[in-house]
Formats: sequence, structure tokens, C-alpha cells
Amino acid sequence: MELREWKTILIPYEYAVEELKVKFKNIRKELRNNGEYSPIEFVTGRVKKISSIISKAKKLNVNMDEIEEKIEDIAGIRIMCQFVEDIYTIVSLIKTRKDMTVVYEKDYIKNYKDSGYRSYHVIIKYPIQTASGLKEILAEIQIRTLAMNFWATIEHSLKYKYQHDIPKDIAKRLRRAGDAAFLLDQEMSEIREEIMRAQVMFEMKSLT
Amino acid sequence: MELREWKTILIPYEYAVEELKVKFKNIRKELRNNGEYSPIEFVTGRVKKISSIISKAKKLNVNMDEIEEKIEDIAGIRIMCQFVEDIYTIVSLIKTRKDMTVVYEKDYIKNYKDSGYRSYHVIIKYPIQTASGLKEILAEIQIRTLAMNFWATIEHSLKYKYQHDIPKDIAKRLRRAGDAAFLLDQEMSEIREEIMRAQVMFEMKSLT
Amino acid sequence: MELREWKTILIPYEYAVEELKVKFKNIRKELRNNGEYSPIEFVTGRVKKISSIISKAKKLNVNMDEIEEKIEDIAGIRIMCQFVEDIYTIVSLIKTRKDMTVVYEKDYIKNYKDSGYRSYHVIIKYPIQTASGLKEILAEIQIRTLAMNFWATIEHSLKYKYQHDIPKDIAKRLRRAGDAAFLLDQEMSEIREEIMRAQVMFEMKSLT
Amino acid sequence: MELREWKTILIPYEYAVEELKVKFKNIRKELRNNGEYSPIEFVTGRVKKISSIISKAKKLNVNMDEIEEKIEDIAGIRIMCQFVEDIYTIVSLIKTRKDMTVVYEKDYIKNYKDSGYRSYHVIIKYPIQTASGLKEILAEIQIRTLAMNFWATIEHSLKYKYQHDIPKDIAKRLRRAGDAAFLLDQEMSEIREEIMRAQVMFEMKSLT
Repeated sequence: MELREWKTILIPYEYAVEELKVKFKNIRKELRNNGEYSPIEFVTGRVKKISSIISKAKKLNVNMDEIEEKIEDIAGIRIMCQFVEDIYTIVSLIKTRKDMTVVYEKDYIKNYKDSGYRSYHVIIKYPIQTASGLKEILAEIQIRTLAMNFWATIEHSLKYKYQHDIPKDIAKRLRRAGDAAFLLDQEMSEIREEIMRAQVMFEMKSLT
Repeated sequence: MELREWKTILIPYEYAVEELKVKFKNIRKELRNNGEYSPIEFVTGRVKKISSIISKAKKLNVNMDEIEEKIEDIAGIRIMCQFVEDIYTIVSLIKTRKDMTVVYEKDYIKNYKDSGYRSYHVIIKYPIQTASGLKEILAEIQIRTLAMNFWATIEHSLKYKYQHDIPKDIAKRLRRAGDAAFLLDQEMSEIREEIMRAQVMFEMKSLT
Repeated sequence: MELREWKTILIPYEYAVEELKVKFKNIRKELRNNGEYSPIEFVTGRVKKISSIISKAKKLNVNMDEIEEKIEDIAGIRIMCQFVEDIYTIVSLIKTRKDMTVVYEKDYIKNYKDSGYRSYHVIIKYPIQTASGLKEILAEIQIRTLAMNFWATIEHSLKYKYQHDIPKDIAKRLRRAGDAAFLLDQEMSEIREEIMRAQVMFEMKSLT
Repeated sequence: MELREWKTILIPYEYAVEELKVKFKNIRKELRNNGEYSPIEFVTGRVKKISSIISKAKKLNVNMDEIEEKIEDIAGIRIMCQFVEDIYTIVSLIKTRKDMTVVYEKDYIKNYKDSGYRSYHVIIKYPIQTASGLKEILAEIQIRTLAMNFWATIEHSLKYKYQHDIPKDIAKRLRRAGDAAFLLDQEMSEIREEIMRAQVMFEMKSLT
């Protein structure tokens, strides 16, 4: 496929990422305005690089004309929260929305990976209006605490360096860092109730 | 109504303005990427100020509980184009979209106002997902050339200064400036075909 | 020169464009906050594309190791105003600043080009802190009315299309459009005093 | 002091925050472009709220005409890093710059507070060009790891809730969360060398 063709395929995914980022950021704004606690701390998004789409397609034995149905994370949204509990609140919230449909979900928090990876993934269908009409695309929403996100960023760099084949001693250290991140999340959950009430007060004061 | 209540009312309008800005900017991006001419030059948007909503409600004899149905420009989008012809292209394009519905339209270009005001207004219905569910709101899209926009900015300041009662000699000078803006648009239309072809070439080159 | 070398050369220019944009936008903000009229309407900036730097160097017989001294518009800032008078206010203002030094200036408004091009160009020296120390670079500031800018955008596309060799009849039409833009600027200047006073009132009201 | 006077005082601080944010983000961009590791992960900034300036002035017995000399964090910049080691790299880097002067520094990492607070603070003088000439202002740069930042956000909310008088059991839990954050930073430092080399490779690949 040539660059121009790729660009044509990827444009609705770019739109979806932009629209979804605006929408999730707005949830935070609305809740804080209403004096309610926001489970969303911040939101990022990206369209997968062409080279990464090609690698993934090869790895999964997906033909070029099937990538749009079979590669679910071409459009990717990441939502960061303060507390593990917030993750589940966000998942419920996504399910009530009328402007996107949940296809399936993977709970890598209750079932965390051997590597130490923890996150909640939701695959959605999302309608996009393009120059040539309405189109439904797939997008992946990853929901994590700040500590999970910190760890995952590091793991991503290491995986990349070692071509997905991290040496044993590094992998071991990485799992220890994962444990430290997990511990931080647990300590946080314990003071959560206090903090939540404190933050709502804080938001309300800064609005006035 | 208190400030907090106003904020709650205005939040879906803020969302709509953000989403619509993203959507119209994306049309431009998509067309340019496809090597096609974009009728959209730039896009701005705003939510009407509370004080302006109140003034307008008084002027139109609208009760506070009817403002959402009767004041159509609480959410306002403005699309600027290079050529008068582009305005009509954009209107057609809005009508084909599935994610907004045209309620009615006013062609102040063919039927320009005595003051010299020229623009095309389209009132749409737009669905917004809020914390409390899906809601349909009204939004006004104003479509203008750059010259029309320049003139309208000036008129807006003068109207404001003179409390909508511009002195005769100023109004006369303003109409002359309006004529000069109109002349510029006409000269532009004459070289339009040439320019359009030139610009498509330009975009395509800058993509490679 | 390789892409990586180009990137290293261009980085201080990118910084300069970002910093200068912030600084000129802030002038507008400060004046409006003080209830004074701002001669600056909006500000854009860009670093010249590598391909354009190379073409210009060839055309001007400039060696690759001299481009930083001899090509003055690698960093380019454009300031748009409502009135011709504002352009001269901005030029004076640039001359009083301690954080940039004017090298020379070209008044293409009093001495407009045959093509119809009108603008005021100021070449400055600007200090930039990079990873390897402090560096002084050249930057070009173009100051124009909105109407001049509109015309110049069109001319740029046409020049590009015809490789700087615009056919006679197109060039003639372009000059007529230039005249219409000039006329609009003149009409504007006549109502300027009124408008200026109106806008200051407008800004003050919207601050309160 | 009236709102308008406050705005006039605060404008140079707003400029400083904007300029400093641009400058520190550019360091990251430049290093990554050169294929070097960036000690800066992300940068935020804010001007202190008027109400907070007034409270701090009262607490420190500072007169209103002395606030610009005696309150050092009216302009505040926060730089987040992945590793504790990066903090010291950034401090050295600030000291070599010609466009800001270090007034003094406080190492709350080696000497962390009883509360559990850890961060490195650098107070700088920074020149700002305003409409009325050049002015030197004070600004505070806080440098932290992501884990320190996470903890400090939580502490800030709790301090606010309890009016700086956090109940003993909450304070104890907070210190435990601080320990967990510290442990995470330590685990991170251990795999740092590996990660640093991995990330440089990652950046270089994504540039090509």
C-alpha cells in the first residue's frame, strides 16, 4: 500500500481519536463543574504508526484488506485515574453512552499479565462522518492508574529495546518495580475515601 | 438563575462547540490530504456569554425556561472561506451529514441586510452525550468569506459602541466599507478557478 | 546535508518562532487587559521548509555554510492588524524591545511591489538558548493588514502554480484584486478613529 | 488592591510562565531530536491565584507592596522526570542557562519533609519585556519524579481539606503512601541504566 492510500485509511481513525479525547476530557470538566469527583485524571490518544500496524498484521497473520476489522487498536485512547476503583467507574460510564458501542473488554487488573502489566481494555465501535459518508471503526480504550501507566511506559521501552525478548534479570527487576507500583496503588486506595471528599471540596472552591 | 445553574445549562453547548470545531477542521484536513480543494479556510466557535443570552431573551420576550428552544445561537460556529462559491459548497456538505440535522437556514448573501451584513446562517440540531444522558441542542453555523468576516467584526464593535444605534454618517461609511469588501469578493471570484487549481497543486506538493 | 544535520540547524529557529509567537500574542493580551487598543489582531509563525531553504540558497547563490547569515527568513513571524496605521505602531514597538535587535526593515507599503504586494518587513536578531549554549539567529517579521494578508495568500498560491511566472492576464486580475484590497484598507482607515474607540470600550466591558 | 491592579501586577508572571514552559519543553524536544536521553518527561506551569497570594502574604507577614520581592512562587513551573537522577541533571542544566539566574535552591529530596514531601525547588530571576519596559521577576521551579508528583497532588488536596491540619491517622497513611512512592522510585533507579539506553534507541527509531 502506498503512503497516500494509508493516509486515506487512517483519516477516520485520526478523527475518532480527536473526538474521543474531547469527549472524555469533557466528562471530567462536567463532573468537576457539578462539584462531583471525576474518576478521569487525564486522557491521551494516538493513531498507531503505519510500521506498527504492518508488524502487528504480520504477527497476527492478518491480510492488508482485513486490518480494519482485525486490528482493534489503530485508534487508541488512554485514560489515567488516581485510584483502581475509578477504573471500574469509567468502564460503567462508557457502557451507558449512546455515541459508542462496547464490543468486548479485557480486565488485565484482576487477571494481570505475567510481565506485571495491569490495565483495563475496552474495545468499542465508533461512528465517524467522513467526506464519503458515515463509517464505523474500532477503537481501543485503555484505562489505568497513574502508577500502572508509569510502569507500562517503562515496560514498553524495554520491550522495544530487546525486541520483545527481555533478559531474565531485567524482567525480574521489572516485576519488582511492578510490585512497587501495585503497592502504591494499594496505599492510595486506603486513603481514597478521604482524598475523594477532599478533592470535591477543592474543585468547588476553585470554581467560585 | 445562579451562576452554578447557568454553568450546568451551558455545559452541553460548550461540548457541542468543541466537537463541531473538531469536525469542521477535520473536513479541511481530509480534503487537503486527498489532494482536493477545501472550501473551509478556518473555523472558530464560542458559547454565548450569559449576559448576552439574558439581553437577547429580554429583547425577544423569551422566558428563562424557554431559552434552550428559542435562542438558537447559544452554541455558535463560524466557518470562513476564500470564495463566495465555497459558502454554498459548505451548506450542501452540512446537509449530507448524519451527525447533525439542519433545522432551517438564512441566506444573508443573496438577501443581504441594509447595514451591509452578508453571511449564510444554518441552524442545526446536534446530539450531545452528557453525564445525565443524551441531549439534543440547537447551534448556529455562520458561513462567510474572509472579507465578509472582516467587515462583520468591525460592525459588531460599532453596534456595541453605539448600543445598536449607529449614527447616520458612521453607518454610511460602514456601508461603503461593506461595498469595498463585496468588490474584493467579486474580484476574487473572477480569479477563483485559477486559484483553486493552484491551491490543490500546492497542498499536494506540501504533503510529499 | 542529511536530514539529521538539518534538524540540528533548524532547532533554534523553531524555538525562536515559538518564543516570538508567545511574545507578540502577549502584547495583545497585555494591552487589552489595560483597556488599551491592541494594534495586533493575530500572529502566526513558521520555520521555512528545508526544500524552500535550498531553492532560495540556489537562487541567491548562497553556500550551504552561509545560509544562517544570508537567508533571513528561516524563522518567520507574521503579524496581522486591522488598520494600516497599526503596522507602524507595531514597528515602533519592536524597536523599543530589549529582547530583540532590529537589523533592517523594508516598507513594502509605501513602496509596494509591481505585483501588488504590500507588507512591512522587519529583520531582527534574536538570542536563543540551546543545549550547546546561547546563539543569535536572524528572523523576519512581516506586518500586514488582514486585507493585505488575504491578497498575499492568493498570490503565493498562484506564484507557486506558475513557478514564479504568472501569465499576463492572471497577473492583471491579481493587481485588480490588490486594488480592491487596498480600497478596503482605505475605507477602513476612514472609520478607524471611531472603531478604535469602540473596540477599547468593547474590550473593557468584556473584562468586567 | 482592585482586580484591575492585580491583573496588571500578574501579567509579567503570566508571560514568564508561558515562556518558561516553552523553553523547558524545547529542551526535551532538542535532546530527543539529537538522539539523546531527555531528563524532562513533562512540564506544567501556573500563576498563583490572587486568593492564595493574599493568604501567603498574611501568613508570612508580607505587605502588599513587597509581595513581588518576597513571594517567590507567584510564577511556578513544575518539571516531572522519570528518575531521581534526572532531577539533578535538570538543576545543573538550569544553572548553565544565560536567560535566567538562580537565586537559591532547596533540596527536599535529600532533606525530605516530615510529611513525606520530596521535590527539588529552584528560585530564579527571569527578565520579562512588558509594555512599560523590561522587568525582572522571581519564579519557582519545582523538579520531581512522577511518583513524587503523584504523592504531592494527593497531599495538596488533603492539606486543603483539613486547612493544613491533617489528622494524625490520615497523616500516617499519607507517610506510608509516601514510602511506597519512594520505593517505586528506588526500584526505578535500579533499572534506570537499562531503561535510559532503551529509550534513546526508541526515540531515534521514531524519528526515522
